[in-house]
Amino acid sequence: MFLVLEGADGVGKTTQIQLLEKYLLNSTESEVLCLREPGGTDLGLEIRKLLLDPNSGDLSAKTEAFLFMAARSHLVENVIQPSLNIGKHIICDRFLWSSVVYQGIVGGLGVEEILDQGQLATGGVLPDLTILLDLPLEESKQRISERGENDRFEQKGEGYLLQVREGFLKLAKKYPKQIIVVSASGSEEEVHARIIQALKDHALA
Amino acid sequence: MFLVLEGADGVGKTTQIQLLEKYLLNSTESEVLCLREPGGTDLGLEIRKLLLDPNSGDLSAKTEAFLFMAARSHLVENVIQPSLNIGKHIICDRFLWSSVVYQGIVGGLGVEEILDQGQLATGGVLPDLTILLDLPLEESKQRISERGENDRFEQKGEGYLLQVREGFLKLAKKYPKQIIVVSASGSEEEVHARIIQALKDHALA
Repeated sequence: MFLVLEGADGVGKTTQIQLLEKYLLNSTESEVLCLREPGGTDLGLEIRKLLLDPNSGDLSAKTEAFLFMAARSHLVENVIQPSLNIGKHIICDRFLWSSVVYQGIVGGLGVEEILDQGQLATGGVLPDLTILLDLPLEESKQRISERGENDRFEQKGEGYLLQVREGFLKLAKKYPKQIIVVSASGSEEEVHARIIQALKDHALA
Repeated sequence: MFLVLEGADGVGKTTQIQLLEKYLLNSTESEVLCLREPGGTDLGLEIRKLLLDPNSGDLSAKTEAFLFMAARSHLVENVIQPSLNIGKHIICDRFLWSSVVYQGIVGGLGVEEILDQGQLATGGVLPDLTILLDLPLEESKQRISERGENDRFEQKGEGYLLQVREGFLKLAKKYPKQIIVVSASGSEEEVHARIIQALKDHALA
């Protein structure tokens, strides 16, 4: 089983991945591997540094897209596909839909263009389900500010966060079989329960 | 004027670029900027390290293609297009045709696939002319061995060098207006004279 959690910064993906990992470890016999994108391989970590370093200067959406796809193809070939082959469950923090939103929609490269690139990068190894954690803008902002984090993406401000949220929701509407929207409002436990319910609804838990 | 020198390792691109730079500096009023791919920007140099480091492990053709395209889009946007805008001449050591040969033909991703990616990466900023330096395999091997260099690409052996040479020649045959084959046999001065003649034949010198 290959699950992906998506959503704007501040929606609580990291926490929900930890809770989901515990749940799967308790409820299945399989190993669970948690990954994040970009990352998960040495090359992926190097690419992550190039992308998120505030000193990298302004990379264009094109350059960013190619870097994300390089990290993604490397992760699929070296970690995701081999792990799925031996029956591991994978939970990934972001995957192709993030590129579609950040570079395709917000960056203006186009949804189809990024999906085409993604088809090449993933070789068709796509999630069984993507859970989109959705949160009203005010709540995202509060969570980001509580974390005290400021990477290149999070510095881009409120209009940007709004575009990202709307981009994800637009994709979820267009691709309802692949992306399930889960409200990220409320307590960690409430959100976790909604995620488990979504998995059950899709016969994945 | 945007010129690119292409060819397998060992055909003498570096030397010929130096001679061509001197020629253009003497024959025109414009500044001449020599670049190499991947490289030419801080990000390009970082990507070059990831690609050429023998410790990077075996990167797939896909991952390589995305990394080259990231470096290329960054170089076009930040160096090539701005330099052309102010009337500089550019001579670049490798460009899109190298991706077509190494990842598209030898790596098996397909010529059209790489040209599509290249269209996105370059935004249509393409060389006025690409000079393909061509050398029989035995001579390439001798020059590589004299240089004592061994990067990830050059370690791949004789069959690989042959595939690369044939790939370039195939493209030159298919795209004769964009790629001119120049024999790289003989002395540096002889090859240089052939390159200048090729430029004159295309009203570029």
